[in-house]
Amino acid sequence: MALLSSIAGPRDLDRLSLAQLDELAAEVRAFLIENVARTGGHLGPNLGVVELTIALHRVFDSPNDPVIFDTGHQSYVHKLLTGRQDFSDLRARGGLAGYPQRSESPHDVVESSHASSSLSWADGLSRALTRTGRKDRHVIAVVGDGALTGGMTWEALNNISDDNDRNLVIIVNDNGRSYAPTIGGMARYLNRVRTADTYRNLHRGSDTLSRKLGPAARAVYRGVRGGTHGFLSRFTNNTELYSNLDIKYLGPVDGHDLGSLIETLELAKEYGAPVIVHAITEKGRGYQPALDDEADQFHAVGRIDPVSGTPVGSAAGAGWTDVFAEELVAIGEERADVIGMTAAMLRPTGLLPFAQRFPDRVYDVGIAEQHAVASAAGLAFGGLHPVVAIYATFMNRAFDQVLMDVALHKAGVTFVLDRAGVTGPDGPSHHGIWDLAMLQLVPHIRMAVPRDAARLREELREAVAVHDAPTVLRYPKGAVSRDLPAVERLADGVDVLARGEAEDVLLVGIGPMAHLAVDVAERLEAQGIGATVVDPRWVVPVQPSIVELAASHRLVITIEDGIRVGGIGTRVRQVLRESGVDTAVDELGLPDEFIDHATREQILEDAGLTAAKIAQNIVAQVLGTRLPVARQTTSEIPIVGEWARSRGDA
Amino acid sequence: MALLSSIAGPRDLDRLSLAQLDELAAEVRAFLIENVARTGGHLGPNLGVVELTIALHRVFDSPNDPVIFDTGHQSYVHKLLTGRQDFSDLRARGGLAGYPQRSESPHDVVESSHASSSLSWADGLSRALTRTGRKDRHVIAVVGDGALTGGMTWEALNNISDDNDRNLVIIVNDNGRSYAPTIGGMARYLNRVRTADTYRNLHRGSDTLSRKLGPAARAVYRGVRGGTHGFLSRFTNNTELYSNLDIKYLGPVDGHDLGSLIETLELAKEYGAPVIVHAITEKGRGYQPALDDEADQFHAVGRIDPVSGTPVGSAAGAGWTDVFAEELVAIGEERADVIGMTAAMLRPTGLLPFAQRFPDRVYDVGIAEQHAVASAAGLAFGGLHPVVAIYATFMNRAFDQVLMDVALHKAGVTFVLDRAGVTGPDGPSHHGIWDLAMLQLVPHIRMAVPRDAARLREELREAVAVHDAPTVLRYPKGAVSRDLPAVERLADGVDVLARGEAEDVLLVGIGPMAHLAVDVAERLEAQGIGATVVDPRWVVPVQPSIVELAASHRLVITIEDGIRVGGIGTRVRQVLRESGVDTAVDELGLPDEFIDHATREQILEDAGLTAAKIAQNIVAQVLGTRLPVARQTTSEIPIVGEWARSRGDA
Repeated sequence: MALLSSIAGPRDLDRLSLAQLDELAAEVRAFLIENVARTGGHLGPNLGVVELTIALHRVFDSPNDPVIFDTGHQSYVHKLLTGRQDFSDLRARGGLAGYPQRSESPHDVVESSHASSSLSWADGLSRALTRTGRKDRHVIAVVGDGALTGGMTWEALNNISDDNDRNLVIIVNDNGRSYAPTIGGMARYLNRVRTADTYRNLHRGSDTLSRKLGPAARAVYRGVRGGTHGFLSRFTNNTELYSNLDIKYLGPVDGHDLGSLIETLELAKEYGAPVIVHAITEKGRGYQPALDDEADQFHAVGRIDPVSGTPVGSAAGAGWTDVFAEELVAIGEERADVIGMTAAMLRPTGLLPFAQRFPDRVYDVGIAEQHAVASAAGLAFGGLHPVVAIYATFMNRAFDQVLMDVALHKAGVTFVLDRAGVTGPDGPSHHGIWDLAMLQLVPHIRMAVPRDAARLREELREAVAVHDAPTVLRYPKGAVSRDLPAVERLADGVDVLARGEAEDVLLVGIGPMAHLAVDVAERLEAQGIGATVVDPRWVVPVQPSIVELAASHRLVITIEDGIRVGGIGTRVRQVLRESGVDTAVDELGLPDEFIDHATREQILEDAGLTAAKIAQNIVAQVLGTRLPVARQTTSEIPIVGEWARSRGDA
Repeated sequence: MALLSSIAGPRDLDRLSLAQLDELAAEVRAFLIENVARTGGHLGPNLGVVELTIALHRVFDSPNDPVIFDTGHQSYVHKLLTGRQDFSDLRARGGLAGYPQRSESPHDVVESSHASSSLSWADGLSRALTRTGRKDRHVIAVVGDGALTGGMTWEALNNISDDNDRNLVIIVNDNGRSYAPTIGGMARYLNRVRTADTYRNLHRGSDTLSRKLGPAARAVYRGVRGGTHGFLSRFTNNTELYSNLDIKYLGPVDGHDLGSLIETLELAKEYGAPVIVHAITEKGRGYQPALDDEADQFHAVGRIDPVSGTPVGSAAGAGWTDVFAEELVAIGEERADVIGMTAAMLRPTGLLPFAQRFPDRVYDVGIAEQHAVASAAGLAFGGLHPVVAIYATFMNRAFDQVLMDVALHKAGVTFVLDRAGVTGPDGPSHHGIWDLAMLQLVPHIRMAVPRDAARLREELREAVAVHDAPTVLRYPKGAVSRDLPAVERLADGVDVLARGEAEDVLLVGIGPMAHLAVDVAERLEAQGIGATVVDPRWVVPVQPSIVELAASHRLVITIEDGIRVGGIGTRVRQVLRESGVDTAVDELGLPDEFIDHATREQILEDAGLTAAKIAQNIVAQVLGTRLPVARQTTSEIPIVGEWARSRGDA
């Protein structure tokens, strides 16, 4: 790694020859395989952008020229070239983040992992630079072909084409796959470009693109700047999509040919207006196990053996996703009206087995959550029952559609939210901690949070039986929680998981937090405090027996792995008050904060969501040593009637 | 109106000749002008689609062929042709809705007024029809050119082109204006089509399109179905945008020529796969006052004189929008970094004066809320301070971007939400009642709700002074509330509006609800109950003095014109509990429901948000005659310590 270790920042690339840059690329690839094999991470995408990232930093001058990565999991090479070569704790607390993070480096701009936003950022940022007299600086957005299916990119392109007075370079990193093979008309268009003669010829020889084009191309290029449109159509005939939006287009270029990349990016740099560079790359490039993986070319891996690519470490048990996958197939066998939908996440959300069993009953819409949800409303209107499987964090993209297209129209659509709650190593934009609070705002919605595999199965069946309202099922990432049978199921479906000797504290454990609630109850019982534990199963609407139980207890503790603000706990408390039950409620959940990458356990511990901490707080409260309860004043209200009368008003 | 009154349903159109259909169009236009002048409503858009809607219902067979209107304010003609000709109470309680409404007619499908969703609905619905053996039925989506700037349409087109096995007709109603002149590259593309020779020639003669094309065109058309692609490119050369997505395209066609329209739609009907029909229409067609209105061709009017088009009735005072408009210009004079942004709503959101004063400091992104917000984050990153002016209800489209692009990146972006709360006659999808509950979920966000003009001005200034977090200002539609001076401003900026003789009830009036709170307080004082009224001004985060005041009162009532579920009231209560203050809190607000069209007053009355009802409930509670308080049980908790000790555990 002689070359790589000599790169402290992008400008160290300037002294390397083209041959040395190729050597550097090989070193980077070896580094990625060795290191990511040890920690897990987004291996495939980063192997695909090695040359692209090197060329980018050679031609442009980050951070003066800000580089924006769409879905920043493709930023590992960028990190390596911008002074961050300690990958030993990648994605672990204290280690490098798996996405760009501004606290790590001034070379990082956008931290969010949500797709399709980079062009909007680049639009705003480049406009700002021009406005503030910094037009000499370039804004570079690197966007995958998969992200182009997202409507935001269309909105952004439409606006970028409106204002040519800025230096904005959009690099389309086209591996034809994104998370998985890219979907839709856009993908077919790119595929036509990719397989066109121009591009095939480009691959054939070892000549770089610019050598092929030579001085003539440069002349034509200058012609473009003078106003003619000849260059691009000579370069390739496949430019209609972008040319209709009046954005200049360069490409396609071989994304693994450093010479071609550098010369094309130099052209783009000199252009003086927004320009699209279309680079064809190969996901998993240079690593045979990734290339052999048909499904997603090692998009994201756990720890693996670096040579064989096989997973190492203890195999986790069945995941929540697997249980959902299996049960949905079973439901599909019984009900022909059930349709699967996903936004470019067929495998990660567990829809793949359903798709294999019922190939014509799954719609993968690409990265297009808004469309997925509104289209599901249309399917429901037509008599089908869509099951939309999506990561909880990406559901935030389609709040309006759940509200206006599904709920307002009383459409029977089931949303299955995977990776809900604290997800861990992927950082703030991957945690699915807003879903409960956000979706409970939707009138008529019904939301279930399963605590174990058996409940996931039964609640999924209950959800798809609802035909006049949106239903939601959400569960975390990873291995399914151990089976936790109920001691009693109440008439409204609420499960009682434990009954103490006395009705002192009611613990409402939401989904997998039910296990924690049971642990808390055991600790309370050991201190002589009677605790009842329930899993509401359906958390919205609040079930009647929760109200009844709350009335007979002295304190209610709700525990959810979503944010406390506006969470299910607030709903429980609101319903209690409406029902005339003023038992004190403590809503436990995650803080009103963005949560950095760390393990799920570390994050829950920080939030005080451990059995020891929760029990300790309850005991303190019960003993009257904690302020909140000691200072409570509602007790005086019943006698206020007396007081009003004593004033002669009644 | 002899012909119009003879139309009880779409099939009554079948017996009319082309000449009679033209006559019908004239009658419809006269009807619209006469009736909408009396009630107010979306006049311009409906005058533009008279012939289009007649042709549509002549060729297709609604409701067997479902017709989906994007932003359904263009559905008045559709209502007239589907048995709804009593427009006397249009948009008033009990009268016809201003949008499609399924409870009115089986001919209505999509009720939401949020733009750009129709293609997604049509995608889902047409897939469902094919899947369930009803492929003979057609799904028709009518979408304006303005709505095409929304990313959802791109997501939908990308998917529609993926599956040809359905009958789906997309009618682009292109008036080049939408709410206002359509923005961006898409608009330029449509404009090129509109002004191309083919289309100009079409207009020149009185011949219909099909007469021009004659039998030869029909033959070519059949050829297309057989697989050749010649027809469309002969029809027009401007098909690249859609052809790259593999969707067939017919047009442009003169949207006021019934003969052309009917024959083009017949072609589309027979095609057997998704097809786009591009119709050129004129907003306000046939009504000179509308055509003379450069700004928006009478997009939506109040009551007007039918002949002159001038507004009638008492002129309302200055609106919230006007106050914002004026203050933003003043701020713009002082701060060069302040930038205005809007999503196709320059005039309605009050940005027009700013745009006139600082033409290069306003970005209208088209109907593209997601892009507006993420692009604003980019502008902020570049050192500017964007003020994004948007209707509260459309903010729901960009929750993810406020969260992930603005807040996570600590970007100083100010959102000014107009038409917040209960808007009235436009029905469920126009009420801005989710904004407070949704946006309070965003970490670090700061939200202000002004109660009058003076507060709007000062809170706007406070908002644009925040550079490290999103700020929100929201206010209702219509005339600004009367000035309501504070009796005292507390150190943290909370305004005390009234102090009673005793500290019994604390009324927290949020924004314009402060006036209501003052009225409630007067009624309480009359009954001997002491009431303090505060306007927190900044409602999120909850200000310290709210907590202090709550601690010294016996009951807290929060009043907001947003939904109760997850609303500001729940936040106040949560903060009180955290702070050890357990004063009972009643959160008043709007029910967890979709609210039909009616006046603002009627809706607030229904929700119990009148001074009389609120005061009555408080008095009942204070007198101990209302259950909630009488049954409250938290009073026992302080002695639970005793009880634990008595069991020998402490």
